[in-house]
Amino acid sequence: MRNKRDVYLDNRPWEEALEGLLKHLEEKGSLVPAEREEIAAEESLGRVTAEPIFAFNSSPHYNASAMDGIAVDSAITFGASDATPKKIQLGDKAQIVDTGDPIPAACDAVIMIEDVHFVEEDVFEITSAAAPWQHVRAIGEDVVATEMILPANHKIRPMDIGGILAGGVGRIKVHPKPKVALLPTGTELVQPGTDLKPGDIVEYNTRVFGSLVQTWGGEPLRWPITIDNWEKLKQSIMEAVEKADIVVINAGSSAGREDFTAELVRQLGTVLTHGAAIKPGKPVILGEINGKPVIGIPGYPVSAYLAMELFVRPIIYKKLGSVAPKPVAAEAIISRKMPSPMGVEEFIRVKMGQVGEKFVATPISRGAGVIMSLVRADGMLRVPRLSEGYRAGDNVKVELMRPLEEIRQTTVIIGSHDMALDVLANHLRRKFPEASLSSANVGSLGGLSALKRGECHCAGTHLLDEETGGYNVNYVQRLLGDRPAVLVNLVYRQQGLMVAKGNPMNIQGLEDLAREGVRFINRQRGAGTRILLDYRLNQLNIDPDSIYGYNREEYTHMAVAAAVASGAADAGLGILAAAKALDLDFVPVVEERYDLCIPGEYWDTPYIKRLLEVISTTEFKQQVEVLGGYDLRDCGGVMYRQGI
Amino acid sequence: MRNKRDVYLDNRPWEEALEGLLKHLEEKGSLVPAEREEIAAEESLGRVTAEPIFAFNSSPHYNASAMDGIAVDSAITFGASDATPKKIQLGDKAQIVDTGDPIPAACDAVIMIEDVHFVEEDVFEITSAAAPWQHVRAIGEDVVATEMILPANHKIRPMDIGGILAGGVGRIKVHPKPKVALLPTGTELVQPGTDLKPGDIVEYNTRVFGSLVQTWGGEPLRWPITIDNWEKLKQSIMEAVEKADIVVINAGSSAGREDFTAELVRQLGTVLTHGAAIKPGKPVILGEINGKPVIGIPGYPVSAYLAMELFVRPIIYKKLGSVAPKPVAAEAIISRKMPSPMGVEEFIRVKMGQVGEKFVATPISRGAGVIMSLVRADGMLRVPRLSEGYRAGDNVKVELMRPLEEIRQTTVIIGSHDMALDVLANHLRRKFPEASLSSANVGSLGGLSALKRGECHCAGTHLLDEETGGYNVNYVQRLLGDRPAVLVNLVYRQQGLMVAKGNPMNIQGLEDLAREGVRFINRQRGAGTRILLDYRLNQLNIDPDSIYGYNREEYTHMAVAAAVASGAADAGLGILAAAKALDLDFVPVVEERYDLCIPGEYWDTPYIKRLLEVISTTEFKQQVEVLGGYDLRDCGGVMYRQGI
Repeated sequence: MRNKRDVYLDNRPWEEALEGLLKHLEEKGSLVPAEREEIAAEESLGRVTAEPIFAFNSSPHYNASAMDGIAVDSAITFGASDATPKKIQLGDKAQIVDTGDPIPAACDAVIMIEDVHFVEEDVFEITSAAAPWQHVRAIGEDVVATEMILPANHKIRPMDIGGILAGGVGRIKVHPKPKVALLPTGTELVQPGTDLKPGDIVEYNTRVFGSLVQTWGGEPLRWPITIDNWEKLKQSIMEAVEKADIVVINAGSSAGREDFTAELVRQLGTVLTHGAAIKPGKPVILGEINGKPVIGIPGYPVSAYLAMELFVRPIIYKKLGSVAPKPVAAEAIISRKMPSPMGVEEFIRVKMGQVGEKFVATPISRGAGVIMSLVRADGMLRVPRLSEGYRAGDNVKVELMRPLEEIRQTTVIIGSHDMALDVLANHLRRKFPEASLSSANVGSLGGLSALKRGECHCAGTHLLDEETGGYNVNYVQRLLGDRPAVLVNLVYRQQGLMVAKGNPMNIQGLEDLAREGVRFINRQRGAGTRILLDYRLNQLNIDPDSIYGYNREEYTHMAVAAAVASGAADAGLGILAAAKALDLDFVPVVEERYDLCIPGEYWDTPYIKRLLEVISTTEFKQQVEVLGGYDLRDCGGVMYRQGI
Repeated sequence: MRNKRDVYLDNRPWEEALEGLLKHLEEKGSLVPAEREEIAAEESLGRVTAEPIFAFNSSPHYNASAMDGIAVDSAITFGASDATPKKIQLGDKAQIVDTGDPIPAACDAVIMIEDVHFVEEDVFEITSAAAPWQHVRAIGEDVVATEMILPANHKIRPMDIGGILAGGVGRIKVHPKPKVALLPTGTELVQPGTDLKPGDIVEYNTRVFGSLVQTWGGEPLRWPITIDNWEKLKQSIMEAVEKADIVVINAGSSAGREDFTAELVRQLGTVLTHGAAIKPGKPVILGEINGKPVIGIPGYPVSAYLAMELFVRPIIYKKLGSVAPKPVAAEAIISRKMPSPMGVEEFIRVKMGQVGEKFVATPISRGAGVIMSLVRADGMLRVPRLSEGYRAGDNVKVELMRPLEEIRQTTVIIGSHDMALDVLANHLRRKFPEASLSSANVGSLGGLSALKRGECHCAGTHLLDEETGGYNVNYVQRLLGDRPAVLVNLVYRQQGLMVAKGNPMNIQGLEDLAREGVRFINRQRGAGTRILLDYRLNQLNIDPDSIYGYNREEYTHMAVAAAVASGAADAGLGILAAAKALDLDFVPVVEERYDLCIPGEYWDTPYIKRLLEVISTTEFKQQVEVLGGYDLRDCGGVMYRQGI
């Protein structure tokens, strides 16, 4: 089997691949909307008209009073003025009407109730004449019978329903929602909620696809999981081609031992492209069977999401007689160097925030397997095929995944990670629904540098001064110079060694790290935890080179904890909360101070005021204490200020 | 009853009125979300989290191969290089794996399949060493157990469902959709589909409201129509307050004889505001009964829509722990003078188009009763309370009702109205789903003036040269000077007198307009039809002053036809298609030429090319011919060009 692998995929520009697919489908007549469906106008929100809608009646369909007042024959009002008021008796030619009432046959105008003065029960006085047809809504003022209310291929909005019903149209013809079959394939897949064994992968991709399809106006049809078996997969595909308008197969689109999809589509129909020049998402399959588009989508969730957007979305819109709207984009400055390979278009998820006048975009994890990178992203940055990437400070255009207004209300914190920040993010959103917190984890020094470059509103930092044993102050002085800034304490926390449950290697302190057979996992350079480690190792006269794994770096406490939990390492330095989260044992080493560094120019802005307000609440403090390993004795207190 | 009318309403700034309402509701505890609801994560699209969602398991939950390839103990690969390739036999420390497979216990790295070369069935060669943990997705790389996946009060998107399921969470707590009772009230209301008598008003407002409520995340509950009866309305309101979170009463919010709403709310609870300083929408009622917000919404559809947006939308979002997103706005130049009364904030619906570099906004009908003004609008322009309006050419900010990208693709035609333009709009959208046609009807001369000012891409014109009897050319020369321009014929059409069915006044020609008892309705100055009339009257030696109604002006053929159909006039000059649409008789007067005037700078743009392509199709021509009164002998032909 191994030697039959079709290892080399195409590397076609995706636009070219898509265009080829659409052209092929067009020739097959596959992009024409299915037979129109008749539905009630009042249930048509979000549907797309299949033909123009013409008014059946006019609206109003009679001459109607536009005001509460008195309908009159204008002729009897002529001559009235301030100097010569006119008295009029109610009767045929002067009748009380409310807004919407028909104008009586003998009348041709309406006088507003505010402009009349009743002198007797049925006699009123006016001081100006009524112009013919004043305050009358003539037949057809809104809708004229036979006029076009909506064109074909129009997506119906709330007000359109009003227009259609005003025109007397009760039922309308719409394009049916394109049916999209979603086929999860893979022997390793299990349904959500299953007890997990190693090797099991929870099948959530088609749930994401289903929501996307709904959002785009289609109807998702989710198939049961098909195991990696040629005949079974073939049967599922044939069934799906029969029942749906579009077939999406996930995954098996790559070139692994059991990736049958491409070969099957080739056997049953046509493969137009296998492999597009995108990253992630390369091993996509664009094909056609019996006139139906069949799209093979890679398994990694980010690749899958992108492939759906690039290749399935336009087909759904075409089947609805429409064009997929372009994403809303915004200008931003990129905060870090972002090299990217030539020859592929790379899609990078970024966090964004408004810092000063400009928006700053910070790339987040590039892993195609990290669905959380999509959950956390504010936008998507495309690096064109013929670019080698961006330098820090470059101006880029970011496609927004959250409304800009929401991003504008986001406090951007860059620096060291602490779990109290998660709690803070949650309470912030709860107290100020319009606000949010975006935290990027680059370590304490990285955070202060980002702050210096104007990329964030504040930095989380726990940097030990190796000379004084104090925290943060001399780093702020050194890095920010005279720039006004404040250090506000968030927490004191225990740093210690995270070790496997039961501490099988019997690690009692930093001294044990240099022992034979102990595999350590370190934090990255610049991280406060790393500086603390180096300081303590120096005090203890332990040579870092004697520690196996000292050079293996992770970027967060959680990543270190996960490495220990997975058995990839025996010990790592981190906080108690992370150890507890993954059910690890914890050997305390030292208490340290974790502060927020806030530059003077943001001190008085909502970005910071809201944070400080949340930090001061009892609810916040209580929830942090529950995490364990924290002391909140100075929480919210100003530890240092300069120039402000 | 009449004298008890509560004629004078408040005139509170709407922001102040809203703030007062929210503050009052807050104090009553009415803005807190209702008890949280548990639902399946995979069915949570668009719902709002009621609490933060924490990961139940890590993802991956085992160390997984990130590639198709061979899992190895990295130690056995050390030393491999191009110069010293290394042969390795499959076994415990070298096992074939696919993406997602667990890393075997004896292994700690993966070599990509592309980087190995099999020399025997079970022996492969490598030319570089594997670094420990390369191509391995460690436990928790995506989601770490216990980490926060989403904060509370977050609206769930497709990718979020992936994140939640990856974290092993199957069911989540969300805020229930706020229940919004929609009470249509009014003896004059009838359900859509009823045979209409004069005075009947089709109840479509609550259908529009229902769609709006859905769009905002609430659950609409539509009540049956309540007639204008104090006790019945009281009963409906009490029932609604019992069953819903928010009660919307439509209408009866004004000060008419049967407008009980304010008094009823006052009796049952509290009226906080009756009358806001907005136009349209003034007679709104903001109240509270038993801790539930009760909003009285005026009856006119545009007023009603606005009042829903301004007052009901924020309450729904509050009840979902969120904040209503701000509308997307764009800068535009206003094309016409737009006076507006001081003391009220006016909301003006505008059509928009990109003309050259700038967006141009043209106000459409201001009538609060014209739902079509919302259907046709591209955006909403607010004139602040303390402004007297705008001058033509002013820069304004418009809140978009269609995506800017769609507006960018819109061909803007200003000028004389012809029904062939409706047909054109429809076929354009059908042939080019991304394109649309926006037409503003200001008469032929108005169109050429707009074109001269750079407000449109082309103008529809049928201007008779009174000296030569020819059409359009000398007007173009006079108005555009040397500016390059092309006249393309759209249609020849019959102009004639539209008269009531059966021609009861026996009108046979223009001569009859001066007859005693004949009431005429005219087109506005500058309209081609008006010029034609004046030309013929002059030829016939008829004095315009002898025609009753000569000074009463309407802006479209349809408006003139509607005036005749309604009995407001006996005759009006217009086109056959308009007469047919309203089942009027038609007395032909003359055939005239209707052209599109296209300035040189747009001749080669998609705005125009797409139009001309559609005009040239048989389908377009056939559908225009069906309207009647048209001759298409020159349709699409160039009648004149200058400088191009």
